[in-house]
Formats: sequence, C-alpha cells, structure tokens
Amino acid sequence: MYRAPIRELRFVLDELLAVGFLSSYAELSEYSSEVSESILGEAGRFAEEVLEPLNQSGDREGARWTPEGVVTPKGFPAAYQAFVAAGWPQLGADPAYGGQRVPQVLSTAVRELWGAANLSFKLCPMLTQGAIEALKLCGSAEQKERFLPKMVSGQWTGTMDLTEPQAGSDLAQIRTRAVPDGNQYRLFGQKIFITWGDHDCAENIIHMVLARVEGAPAGVKGVSLFIVPKILVNADGSLGAPNELRCVSIEHKLGIHASPTCMLAFGGSQGALGYLIGSANRGLEYMFIMMNAARLSVGVEGYAVAERAFQRALDWARNRVQGKPAAAPIGAPIVYHPDVKRMLLTMKSGIAAMRALALYASLQLDIAEHEPDAQRRQHAQTRADLLIPIVKGWCTEFGNELGAIGVQIHGGMGFIEETGAAQYVRDLRITTIYEGTTGIQANDLIGRKIGRDRGAAMATLLVQMRAELDQLEGSDAVMRVVKHASIEAVERLREATDSLLEAFAAGQERALAVGVPYLNLCGFVLGGWLMAKSAAIADLKRAASEREFYAAKLASTRFYAQQILPRALALARIVQSGAGSVTDSDAALI
Amino acid sequence: MYRAPIRELRFVLDELLAVGFLSSYAELSEYSSEVSESILGEAGRFAEEVLEPLNQSGDREGARWTPEGVVTPKGFPAAYQAFVAAGWPQLGADPAYGGQRVPQVLSTAVRELWGAANLSFKLCPMLTQGAIEALKLCGSAEQKERFLPKMVSGQWTGTMDLTEPQAGSDLAQIRTRAVPDGNQYRLFGQKIFITWGDHDCAENIIHMVLARVEGAPAGVKGVSLFIVPKILVNADGSLGAPNELRCVSIEHKLGIHASPTCMLAFGGSQGALGYLIGSANRGLEYMFIMMNAARLSVGVEGYAVAERAFQRALDWARNRVQGKPAAAPIGAPIVYHPDVKRMLLTMKSGIAAMRALALYASLQLDIAEHEPDAQRRQHAQTRADLLIPIVKGWCTEFGNELGAIGVQIHGGMGFIEETGAAQYVRDLRITTIYEGTTGIQANDLIGRKIGRDRGAAMATLLVQMRAELDQLEGSDAVMRVVKHASIEAVERLREATDSLLEAFAAGQERALAVGVPYLNLCGFVLGGWLMAKSAAIADLKRAASEREFYAAKLASTRFYAQQILPRALALARIVQSGAGSVTDSDAALI
Repeated sequence: MYRAPIRELRFVLDELLAVGFLSSYAELSEYSSEVSESILGEAGRFAEEVLEPLNQSGDREGARWTPEGVVTPKGFPAAYQAFVAAGWPQLGADPAYGGQRVPQVLSTAVRELWGAANLSFKLCPMLTQGAIEALKLCGSAEQKERFLPKMVSGQWTGTMDLTEPQAGSDLAQIRTRAVPDGNQYRLFGQKIFITWGDHDCAENIIHMVLARVEGAPAGVKGVSLFIVPKILVNADGSLGAPNELRCVSIEHKLGIHASPTCMLAFGGSQGALGYLIGSANRGLEYMFIMMNAARLSVGVEGYAVAERAFQRALDWARNRVQGKPAAAPIGAPIVYHPDVKRMLLTMKSGIAAMRALALYASLQLDIAEHEPDAQRRQHAQTRADLLIPIVKGWCTEFGNELGAIGVQIHGGMGFIEETGAAQYVRDLRITTIYEGTTGIQANDLIGRKIGRDRGAAMATLLVQMRAELDQLEGSDAVMRVVKHASIEAVERLREATDSLLEAFAAGQERALAVGVPYLNLCGFVLGGWLMAKSAAIADLKRAASEREFYAAKLASTRFYAQQILPRALALARIVQSGAGSVTDSDAALI
Repeated sequence: MYRAPIRELRFVLDELLAVGFLSSYAELSEYSSEVSESILGEAGRFAEEVLEPLNQSGDREGARWTPEGVVTPKGFPAAYQAFVAAGWPQLGADPAYGGQRVPQVLSTAVRELWGAANLSFKLCPMLTQGAIEALKLCGSAEQKERFLPKMVSGQWTGTMDLTEPQAGSDLAQIRTRAVPDGNQYRLFGQKIFITWGDHDCAENIIHMVLARVEGAPAGVKGVSLFIVPKILVNADGSLGAPNELRCVSIEHKLGIHASPTCMLAFGGSQGALGYLIGSANRGLEYMFIMMNAARLSVGVEGYAVAERAFQRALDWARNRVQGKPAAAPIGAPIVYHPDVKRMLLTMKSGIAAMRALALYASLQLDIAEHEPDAQRRQHAQTRADLLIPIVKGWCTEFGNELGAIGVQIHGGMGFIEETGAAQYVRDLRITTIYEGTTGIQANDLIGRKIGRDRGAAMATLLVQMRAELDQLEGSDAVMRVVKHASIEAVERLREATDSLLEAFAAGQERALAVGVPYLNLCGFVLGGWLMAKSAAIADLKRAASEREFYAAKLASTRFYAQQILPRALALARIVQSGAGSVTDSDAALI
C-alpha cells in the first residue's frame, strides 16, 4: 500500500527550504504551513485511495483503441471525474481562470503524489497544465476566455502535439501543414506519441499542435503553434461539431500502459480547424514555455515512482525472512542483511536528495514570479533555468536506477509481474526520454545554461553552496563526515565546470561529449549540498522531538555522503578528461 | 538483424588470451584456431538464422500452460530439434557420453551467441548442462549410463529444482520431502521458479531436485539431491510411465516470456519416484557444482544481450537523422551526435571488457581441468573460483545498464515494444537475480574467495595485473593514457582490498555492507586490465592489417579507460569508507 510521504515533504518545505516566507508575497499571502499541510494531506489521501488502487489494474488492462475512440482502463474515467470534482486540476492555476493559487513548490510536492500512485494517470493533468501555460502566456484574450476556464477546471484536457515520425528530438523537420482559411487555419498531417491524445475521461480535448503555415521558412523558424480542439467550441463556449481529426492507433509500449499514446491524423478532406496562437513562426518558442514546466514535472516522476518502488521493496524486506543476517538474530527479515540495507538506503537517500533539489528548483520559480525586487526575481529565474535540465535529467536517470533496485530487493519475486515491482521499472523507462531525452537536457544545460553566460549562473551557485556548507555546524562525527564529503563534491564540480567551460570555448563538440556525465555530476553534488543542510537540521532537532524521524534522516544523509556522493569523483574525472575519447573516435568505425 | 560478433570473439581467443596453447593438453589436442573459427562460424549462423528470428515472436507469444503440459511459442520445438540435430548440446561435453570435447573457453564464446540471439531459448541447454555436470561428478555409474547419453545429445533436457516459496536464496528452508522406498525415494512437495520445468521441445525432462530425506538434520546439512525424471526411464533406457509430478502453473514475468518458469508439484498420492545422487545430506554441495558453471553462463548473458541491444541501437543510430550533430554535416545520422557516440561507445567498450573477463575466467577452468602440473592446475582453479562471482555479478549489473542505454539511443521509439529494444531491458532484468543475486555473489566473493584465504588469491592477481600493465609498451599518447588509467585503477583496487580485508577481520558485517560496490570495482578494474592488454595488441597490429578493426579497438579501449574506468575511483572510495553508513544505521528506521 502506498503511503504518501507527507512528513518527508513537510521536512523539505518547512524545515529545509523554509518556504513560509512566500506568504510575504501579495499573491501568495494565503500560504501557510497549515494550508500546505492540509493540501498535502488531502492529496495524499486521494493518491492513496483513488489513484493507487488503479495503478496495477490499469497497467494490466491498458488503454484500448476502438473506432469510436480510445477507452481507458476500468475506473479511470471515474477517477478523473473525482479528481476534477475535488478541484485538483485548479491547484496552482491562475484565479483569473478559476484556479486556486498555491506556490509552485507546493504544486510540485503534490505532483509527486500523483506520479507515485499512478504515473499513467498523472500524465493527463500534466499535459493539460502545459497546454494551459502556453495559452495563458501566448493566447489572445478571446482564446483564453473560450478555452482556459474549462481546461483549468479539468472539464477539458489538453495535449502537446510535437512529434512526427521524422521529427522527434528535431522539431525542425515538422511537416504538418496549416492552410489559412479566413481567421483560422486548416491543418493536415500526422502526429505521433501524443500522450492522452484521445480518451474517454473528459468531454473535450484541446490539442496544442506544432505545424507549418504554407510558405513558412524551413526549419524551426517556420513552425507555428495552433489550438486544435477535438470537438469544436462555439463562441458561447458550448460544444459544436467534431473537428476533422481522429486517433488512428495507439502504441504498444513497455510501460505506462494506462496512458494512451496516440497517433493523430489531422484533416482527411477539409482539414482540421485550428487557431493560431500568438504570431506565426514562433511556435517553438511558445512550445518551450510548456516544456519547462513539463520538464520539471517529469523530473519529479523520476523520484516519485522510485519512492513507490522503495515503499514496496521496504515492505517486502521487512517481512521476508531468508538466511541469518550478519549481526542479527535468526528469523530476522532480510532488511537486516547488510546488502539489502545498502540497497534500501540507496533508494531512500537518493529519493530524498532528488526531492529536495526538485522542490528547491520549484521554489525559485515562485520567487521569480512573485518577488517584488526585480534583481532577485531575475536571480531566481536564472537559477531555475539552470536547474530544470538537471532536475529532469538527473532525477529520471537516477530514478530508473533506483526502480531497478526495487526489483532486485524482491529477488525472484521481483521479476513476476503480479508482485508489482517490475511495473515501476517499465513505467520509469520513458522518463529519461519524453519531454527531451537526457542528452537533450545536457545539451540545454551546457549550450544555453552554462555556455551562454560563460558559467556565471553556475559560479554563483557554487559560491553559495560552498559558503553554506562552510557554515554548517554539527555536534558529532557524522556531521563532520557529511560536511567534508559535500564540500569535496562541490570542489570537484567547480573544477569540472572550469574544464567544461574551456572545452566549450574550444568548440561545443568536446563539451557535449561529456554533457550527460556533467549533468549527473551536477545532480549528485547539488543533492549532496541539500542533504548536508538536511543533516544539520536533523542533527540540531533530534534531541528535542521526533527522535526516530531525525535519527533516520541523519543516517540517510550520512549514507548519501559516503555511498552516493563518491560518484562525483568519477564523474568529475570523466568530465575533465573523457571528451577526447568520444570526439577523436570515428563514428563510422563504432 | 543480429550479426554474431565472430571477429570480436576471435580477437579475445586468438590474440588477447592466445588460447592456442590448449592444444598441448592431451585431451584438447584437436583444438586449433581453425577449429575454433569453424565452430564459431557455424554457431553464429545458427544463432542468426534459427534463434534470432524467434526472439521477438517468442516474447510476444510467450510459453503457455495447458492441462496437458506447457506449450512453447511457435517455432521453438522445431528450433530445439534443429539444435539437437546440429549437435550443439554435445559441444564441450565428455566424449565418454557422446560429447564433442572443446575447451570451456570456446563453449563460453558460443554461449554468448545463443544468449544474444534468444535468451529464453539459451536457458534450456544451460539448465540441462548444469544437470549433466552434477550427474557426471556425483551420480553412480548406473545413473550416468541411464541418463547421461540422452541428456548430452539433447534428446532429454534437464532442470535444477531448488526454490520453494519460503526457500529462495536460503536453501536451508527447503521442505520437499523424500521418503525412502527400497533403493529409491518418493518425493512430495512443491518447487517454484523451475526454468524450462515443463515444455514440448523434448520427450523427457530430468529434474535435479533438492529435498529432505525424512529424519534428516535441519538446515542445509539435511538437504539431498535427487534425480526425478518427468517420464520414468526403464533399465534399458526406454521410456516408461509418467512420474507423479506435474506443472501446476507458469509465471507471468517481466521478461524471458518464451522460457517457461514452472511451479512443479511432486507426489499427489504415491510420491514422485526419485533416485538419490551421491550421499544423502550432501545435496547442497552437489548443487554448487552445477551452480558454478551456471553462474559463469549467466554472467555471459549480461553482455550477450547487451551486445544484441548494442547492434540494434547502432543500426538505428546509423540510419536515424535528427538535428545537425556538432562537427558533422547536415543530414548526418545521430551516430555523429557526441552524446549518442558516447552511449554507443559505453555499450561497445563495456561489452568488450566483460567478454574478455568471462572468457579469461573460462580459460582458467580449462587449465584447471587439463594442465598436467598440479600446482598450475590449482592456481588456475583458485583464479577461476575468485573470478566467477565477479563475472556473474558485474557482467549482469553492467549488462542491465547497457541494455537500458540501448533503449535510450532509440529515443521514443525505444519505448515501443515493436522496436525490439525494450525486450532486452526486460529480459536482462532477471540476470542479476537468478543463480544467486548480485548480493549473494558479493557474499561469496568476500566470504569464500577473499576472506577465507585472507586475500591471497586476489593479491596474486593484483601483482600479476600490475606487472603486466607495467610492461605494456605503446607507440603513442593513447597507449600512455590507457596504461596510466589501468594502473591507477589496479592501485585503487589494491587499497580497497586491503581495507576490505581489515573490515572482514573485524566482523563480516562491515565487509558485506560494501560487498556489491567491491564486486563491481573488481569487475571494472579487471576489465580495464584486459582492455589495456587489448589496446597494446591493437596498437601493435594496426599498421599491418585490418586497420579499421584495430583502430576501432584502440578507440574503444581508450574510451573505456577515460569514461568507464574512472568509476573505480568512486567504488574504491565507497569500499574504503562507506560501510559504517550501512552498519551504524538502524534497519528498523529505514
């Protein structure tokens, strides 16, 4: 059974990040630790009671294509209706369109619960949220009025339609055509990999479609963004005739079986009616607005599913008896075996580090949006921009590793589908791919976030981490170990960053050849910094209350410092001297 | 399409390990490089033309349980018959029972081809082989005569029946009962996870069953090994009546769908007839005879399936065009993207290192069996014993990592089952679990192979590696880089081993808490040693012939040194200082 990790989330929000200051911002004045506790509690119950019970059955049954449309697994339409009725889609949305404003850091915390309980389900509101963001920032007043309220309420869902068979990571190759027809457009083409592109959970679906207006320039500079509703929407907001688009098939995938991945065909004869968003040929720019939020959200999925896998593995390890663990009595369950403990602590401490980093990044978005001081706003936005590819790339790569450990802890039973552990491995596999592969995240990190400002944003972060770590005080040997390890890791990241900047200056290729190791290095080191700060808090508080919680927190931060953070040594070395082994090697001879 | 990597295998056999000397052993006098080339060529064709075409269809269809017995996927019975007709089961078997004696190092090379082309299929002869080994070494003359010839020919297959629901890694908990009945026994009980425990590919199945003779001591010291045929075998070798055992269900698994994983029920009323092998209560000892060979063979699976995944990813990367890779012309396929190259080189060089280590370990078994000098024989056996848990643990863990990279290189298409890349991830997942989890391998390595002789076998290996690496000469900067990196890695392993021995002396728990990191450290460093030796050969030969092959070999050894081997820094650090973070942590608080 899934238990929403509310105490862990509150530790990060209230203690590590101390996000209470957000209520000083006019638009977030209603925020308080109590509000956050209550929302997390309600969300946790919904995740545990409504979403989790559909996770395994949804995986087994899968979404089904029918000529009349896609049918989602038993229970999904009702769960979605309950999700809407409880107001969850509005969480974090603009009150102007019926939303309930809460800080992004809290929305992110809640998203973990949906992702952990049911990743397939979680994708539907995630994509809708992306579509909402793009409409809100780039749509006309009339478009917003017509579409946003029902998308915010969840009555309609949204999708992002980018990919075509020849255009995956490379959106320059998009061929879907948009033919002008008065104030609107007629779309013709085929899109693949459209998550929740068709389903039976809501009455309408608003597709955000990248297409090329006839005569537009080649490449990404000729791509525009269109609103293409599944059912046409009358001026008064009521539903009209079906639009000329249909789901022609759904994919047979490794995981997220309950999430329909659709091939959509636009325009059999007249063309699907579409409405241009913003200016023509700026579609990619608008799409990246959706993308940033979606990337952060996918990063969360990495540790969300890993947390679910961890809980299942822990339950198993606490009950399964095999052999006599060293230093434990006969009959002790396998959790006492040193190697099983090691695996569980790898999962637990890794998840804690990822969660802390993703929530820290989300907090930067809140500051960037609401902080009155322009310079501080800019600083927070720069920090968030730097962190988002790291959160997306590192949390999903590491999350996959942890999901596999969850299977391993189960032994042979982990390989049996009914056990449930294997589904997490299958579901997690997509997270390093969709919304931009890890390689794309690394390119973004290095090209746009480090290369463009010559490392300024990273340098600021390095200085801050070092200063904060230097100031950490602790009462005992454990704190000294944690402090020392995290400082050493920051220094390795500093050296690696210098060497990356040199490589980048000499031509991108050498930097990109160690891009993913650099991204992962950033993740482990930033995680180490936040875990060290967590350790100091736990060290201080453990004498006073919740002894077990803080003792466990301290133990897992120590584990992170001694068993996870050493990876920074390897990754820094690879960044510093590994590039030539890629760039000098002849691709034709691989 | 799978292309059996014959040139790579011959490089390891003929150039790196120079196994030609094996023909100086009387029993292997027919071995030559030409014989090996011809066998590898034939096996490669069989793998490519018969086994590979059934891999994806077998996965999709899966084995099916019926009341009349298990039905394997379409094409499997015919493929198995062709496998028998071609004489493949006899390869490496004792000529006394109809086998065709070839060195184990060649059998291991051939096993890679079966595993790469069709892992599900490969398991059937692997288990049969294990049963043959146990019978050959521990069975009576009469038992051998009755069962071995038809098992060696492949006319009958074999299984190893260890696991029961409460007895997975812990065989002390076995409950299956054996009741004496004259010279034979009647078995009652249930076994689970029996690979190829029932099927329609051969006329009989010889089960090797662990059970407890009534009144035997508790624990592993009361476990005996029995021959339990599916169909009873008359004294003249002809088939008699069905035995009292049946397959009651098969598992629904993450992968290896075409390999039936059976639950077997022995003895509904009279009991299943069984014949004791060797002495009562020594079953576990005998089972370990099968186990060692099976563990080596499962280690091979790790890189075999990774090689198949590599080939598919490489084919994709050479044809898929997305974006303009840095330093390559427009229209260049994704293999030119630095990060895709990095991923492909990670797979290629990792596979080469694992293959070299597994074949090196197999060669030790040949020397241990055939070398006339007793001291050298013992030395080789000790070396093989040390290496087998490393081959099993490291090659399967690393193989899983590489299989996942294969999916990643495909981007979104990798997640679609029809692409075929995802199956390798699903199939590989079992390899770190069956025939002893990685944790069990690490316990074996540390407890039996390092702890018992206080590191003597490992010290000898360390001295040899260092001496060989010191002597490497190379003409250019690449060789210097490779030599330096591999020597540094050996030194890290030496320090880590010292620290492990200290921990072990102070009580096993601390050593076991870093057992898996130590095992992986051994794998990466030993791989680095063999890759450095490979580099020296390639460096020497590349001017003379096959320039492209040797240039590619040198490039991949350099990549290994600069992008893979740095992991030794992290792992050594974890071994040296990570144990306390596990042992001091309270398992009840995880």
